[in-house]
Amino acid sequence: METITSVNNKIVRHLALLETKARERKKSRSFIIEGERIVRDSLKELPPGDVLGIYVTQELAGRSPDLPAGVGAYRVVTVTEEVFRKISGTQSPQGILAEVRIPEYSLADVIREPEGRAPLLVMTEDVQDPGNLGTMIRTAEAAGVTGMILSEGTADPTNPKVVRATMSALFRMKYAVVPDFAQALASVRAAGIRIYAAALEGSRLYDSCSYRGGTAFLIGNEGNGLSAETLAAADGKIRIPMEGRIESLNAAMSAGILMYEAARQRRAGKEL
Amino acid sequence: METITSVNNKIVRHLALLETKARERKKSRSFIIEGERIVRDSLKELPPGDVLGIYVTQELAGRSPDLPAGVGAYRVVTVTEEVFRKISGTQSPQGILAEVRIPEYSLADVIREPEGRAPLLVMTEDVQDPGNLGTMIRTAEAAGVTGMILSEGTADPTNPKVVRATMSALFRMKYAVVPDFAQALASVRAAGIRIYAAALEGSRLYDSCSYRGGTAFLIGNEGNGLSAETLAAADGKIRIPMEGRIESLNAAMSAGILMYEAARQRRAGKEL
Repeated sequence: METITSVNNKIVRHLALLETKARERKKSRSFIIEGERIVRDSLKELPPGDVLGIYVTQELAGRSPDLPAGVGAYRVVTVTEEVFRKISGTQSPQGILAEVRIPEYSLADVIREPEGRAPLLVMTEDVQDPGNLGTMIRTAEAAGVTGMILSEGTADPTNPKVVRATMSALFRMKYAVVPDFAQALASVRAAGIRIYAAALEGSRLYDSCSYRGGTAFLIGNEGNGLSAETLAAADGKIRIPMEGRIESLNAAMSAGILMYEAARQRRAGKEL
Repeated sequence: METITSVNNKIVRHLALLETKARERKKSRSFIIEGERIVRDSLKELPPGDVLGIYVTQELAGRSPDLPAGVGAYRVVTVTEEVFRKISGTQSPQGILAEVRIPEYSLADVIREPEGRAPLLVMTEDVQDPGNLGTMIRTAEAAGVTGMILSEGTADPTNPKVVRATMSALFRMKYAVVPDFAQALASVRAAGIRIYAAALEGSRLYDSCSYRGGTAFLIGNEGNGLSAETLAAADGKIRIPMEGRIESLNAAMSAGILMYEAARQRRAGKEL
């Protein structure tokens, strides 16, 4: 088994950059997942060729002799504690992380009608908080969302904070980051999918529309909401009613309530 | 106007402790809110006697000459940048914070039937993430929740991270932190309120129950869910269905979906 003991090793420097720099991730088309649970999940979810390397502290490798065997054909590298601290993005590292390929779906892949169900898409325009984006991806899988379309101004889905918040859902959710959001909206509409913009001043209550057919929910930036251009491109503006003096819901919460309303209607539709 | 220039001032030490220590907050029955927006909100929401002091940097006071006037009868103290950094809990301080009284509601206050509507309660058992608790409180106000009951093991609602995530909803939501959660459950049931436990192995789909009558939702710890004792005390176990291979939803998300299902049913009930 390979071992790395120097923090100045080229691979170590590459991994440390992957943790912190979107540019490095873009260049190498790979990102870091960290922690025993998510690494094990990724081995189940990803084609073996997409797991580029697994990095384990000597301490953890010694404690878990099944670990190298458990990861079978993969490239496993043991590293010193010092090296691991250098490449880890967490405060209390568990001693295991992996470099994996960024999944690449085309916009057409994401929009395509899934088998046996109408498309249910979530489109984010410049959602900036990594925790919000990660929670949206996690909730989207649970609610039966069939794909996500992210504006370029949205948080990077391979940012370690996003990855952590998705709880492995990132490996299973089809998504595309699109340079031209207006063009993506046009493609979604051309596919016969109705586009609903979540907006504070939405003219319809969110639960008064039917989401049984192909549906896309538009979620805007935490501070500024959706751009005027995007709002104008939507088929309808919907509003989640709020009591009290709250000005807005958390962006991930809004998205989750909409997705689960669609799931509820679709489940109810089946039962009828 | 009072001015504090020394980081060793007794008040400064007290304020710094309020930021970080639940014990200090408990002892003085006060906590810190930070940022221009939430301080202004608090002046609208709280009785003047509950705002114990407003602390502003000399720089901000100079830039906003209306500030002292805007806060009228309150005790406003200007402080140096150095002092403010010492008492601030944020990375990039805005230069204003206030010490305010912790609201104190009895369990009976929280449970009491609000005017014109059936009680809708959220009860948290050891929810530990401050962001989750804060988001729950914010969403609860928006969904029309009438009160919250927190187990002692739940995150401290006056923790600065919780306060921030509530977006001022903390000042408007009736809540009680209870030393004996089982006793609180008994009181809620005695008030004729049905108690639903959100559980992964819930026997009923969450949207197949009626929440039009008095309803309490039980939300458990992020990692371990609800205790067996609490589950046994619930009138029903409900489940939010999940597709894909997601094991659970985020705790705040689960709570939000339940609250908004109750709000949806209650709104629909009105329209019928």
